[in-house]
Amino acid sequence: MENTQANPIRIGVVGYGNLGRGVEAAVALNPDLQITGIYTRRDPAQLKPAHAQTPVYRLDDLDAHHGQVDVLILCGGSKDDLPVQTPALAAKFNVIDSFDTHARIPEHFAAVDAAAQGGKTTALISAGWDPGMFSINRIMGEALLPQGATYTFWGKGLSQGHSDAIRRVPGVAQGVQYTIPVQAAVDAVRSGSCPTLSTREKHERHCYVVLAEGAEAEVVRHTIVTMPHYFDEYDTTVNFISAEEFAREHSTMPHGGFVIRSGRTSAGTNQVVEYRLQLDSNPEFTASVLVAYARAVHRMAQMGLHGAKTVFDVAPGWISAKSPAQLRQEAL
Amino acid sequence: MENTQANPIRIGVVGYGNLGRGVEAAVALNPDLQITGIYTRRDPAQLKPAHAQTPVYRLDDLDAHHGQVDVLILCGGSKDDLPVQTPALAAKFNVIDSFDTHARIPEHFAAVDAAAQGGKTTALISAGWDPGMFSINRIMGEALLPQGATYTFWGKGLSQGHSDAIRRVPGVAQGVQYTIPVQAAVDAVRSGSCPTLSTREKHERHCYVVLAEGAEAEVVRHTIVTMPHYFDEYDTTVNFISAEEFAREHSTMPHGGFVIRSGRTSAGTNQVVEYRLQLDSNPEFTASVLVAYARAVHRMAQMGLHGAKTVFDVAPGWISAKSPAQLRQEAL
Repeated sequence: MENTQANPIRIGVVGYGNLGRGVEAAVALNPDLQITGIYTRRDPAQLKPAHAQTPVYRLDDLDAHHGQVDVLILCGGSKDDLPVQTPALAAKFNVIDSFDTHARIPEHFAAVDAAAQGGKTTALISAGWDPGMFSINRIMGEALLPQGATYTFWGKGLSQGHSDAIRRVPGVAQGVQYTIPVQAAVDAVRSGSCPTLSTREKHERHCYVVLAEGAEAEVVRHTIVTMPHYFDEYDTTVNFISAEEFAREHSTMPHGGFVIRSGRTSAGTNQVVEYRLQLDSNPEFTASVLVAYARAVHRMAQMGLHGAKTVFDVAPGWISAKSPAQLRQEAL
Repeated sequence: MENTQANPIRIGVVGYGNLGRGVEAAVALNPDLQITGIYTRRDPAQLKPAHAQTPVYRLDDLDAHHGQVDVLILCGGSKDDLPVQTPALAAKFNVIDSFDTHARIPEHFAAVDAAAQGGKTTALISAGWDPGMFSINRIMGEALLPQGATYTFWGKGLSQGHSDAIRRVPGVAQGVQYTIPVQAAVDAVRSGSCPTLSTREKHERHCYVVLAEGAEAEVVRHTIVTMPHYFDEYDTTVNFISAEEFAREHSTMPHGGFVIRSGRTSAGTNQVVEYRLQLDSNPEFTASVLVAYARAVHRMAQMGLHGAKTVFDVAPGWISAKSPAQLRQEAL
């Protein structure tokens, strides 16, 4: 596991949206990794990578590149791309994805596992921060403090799904939604009191909307705050702003949140473990997780650990560029 | 890796001080583990375990119990006990310790590894929270955000080493020392600004002292605050209190702290990862870590992963009582 800068791990990037661009930026910070190609369904000539020297290929070229890529980082969407791409590509390549439809993870795992077992490849699914780093902290918190409760708070952050939902409301020209943890709930959890919290008590939703020509603010507001599943169970605030303010203040994708495990190890003895992310860019951090775990995928493939894997199967040392001896000396 | 309550993992506890008592309490919260014996250098008849039915043996009896214990949890001290006990016992048993003399970890690892490789056992060293959970967060933070800085803050918490140091000062009848992170430093780190902080800027030290008969407060205070290595580089406050207040307010062992990794994934994009512990009882939490990782040691031994190991070598799923499929479904 020495740093192999002389012989970097060859990374292929499949898809080049926000996540793919984040992967390109993250790989540049890791001298033991190198992007050998970006693979796209678009016309490669039309795609301009941040690093002009990065080769861009058609997705169909991948077959011909078998043996020339150590790990593929799949940067497509969880709804339509990954359920098809990850199993298909895991049959021939070591892969990693950030599949994040929590309810469908067992199904996705099974499909990817069948392909990866067949191809003797290593395929890590659902890496990122939730699922991913938050998941690790949920299971470790529970294992360390079996008598207790686990709380996940998200935000302050831009929710892609909820932003999409408000953009579908008639009269909305542009819109974003921020999820914000309720401070009183966070404080109660941190105190070790293990409160029972309703959906409404944990998070607020704040929307920023640019109205379409002629739309009525109150009608739009009412449609949003009463929207089933998305908003009706929350305290939702809708702020109407100008297109200029929208462009100026709401063009980045911050996110983050907390996983808190609160438990007791004996009567009256509270122990609280908290993991917190404060991210200026959600896709760039997700990409950073994918890149570090791509290193682990390469090592696991070399160790013969084939099949579908998740972050739960990856020892912390495997994601580091440093050797085990160096890690023990510097960081233990 | 199913929950084996019908056939629990057999745990031997070596040493029965604060940590050993914490292990006994923690095992009671984990139905898949069972303490089969406490091993002591004292007279077993004089030792009263919290659970009266727990068998107590002489440390010398361990040899005869070979094959009857799955994992030994070693609860001795890092100065005198573990450097001898861990290699000696690793030659025959799967073991775990909380060796916490950071500078001597490579040496301890080498001695334990030789014994465990020879005995084909699994021996995990330096489990706890620092070294342990904090170490994991230091290496993962750096792997996820290679361009950045890592900060460890301790406290508010009782420091055993510094409390021992003030108790050696002439004129001190009783004394404890709390390490307290400086809030301004924590805030600066959380902001993502990656400040450079001196020792004095990161932590304060607060001492509570009961004076011995006839001792002069100012002399004691001066001796403490100028003590090289322990106090001279810090802003140290010494509070003189009565024996009654000392007994009432300073008999527990709270601790905790933060590991913060602050990094950039692109120009101007700050990402902050924070892991925080807030512990009513330092030894009970350390014991909880040892117990969860004892489960991993048992599994690693079954997988044939012999030799010395650290928390860096342990996948998160291995410390959980739940099956991989259950973890993926519930927590990913």
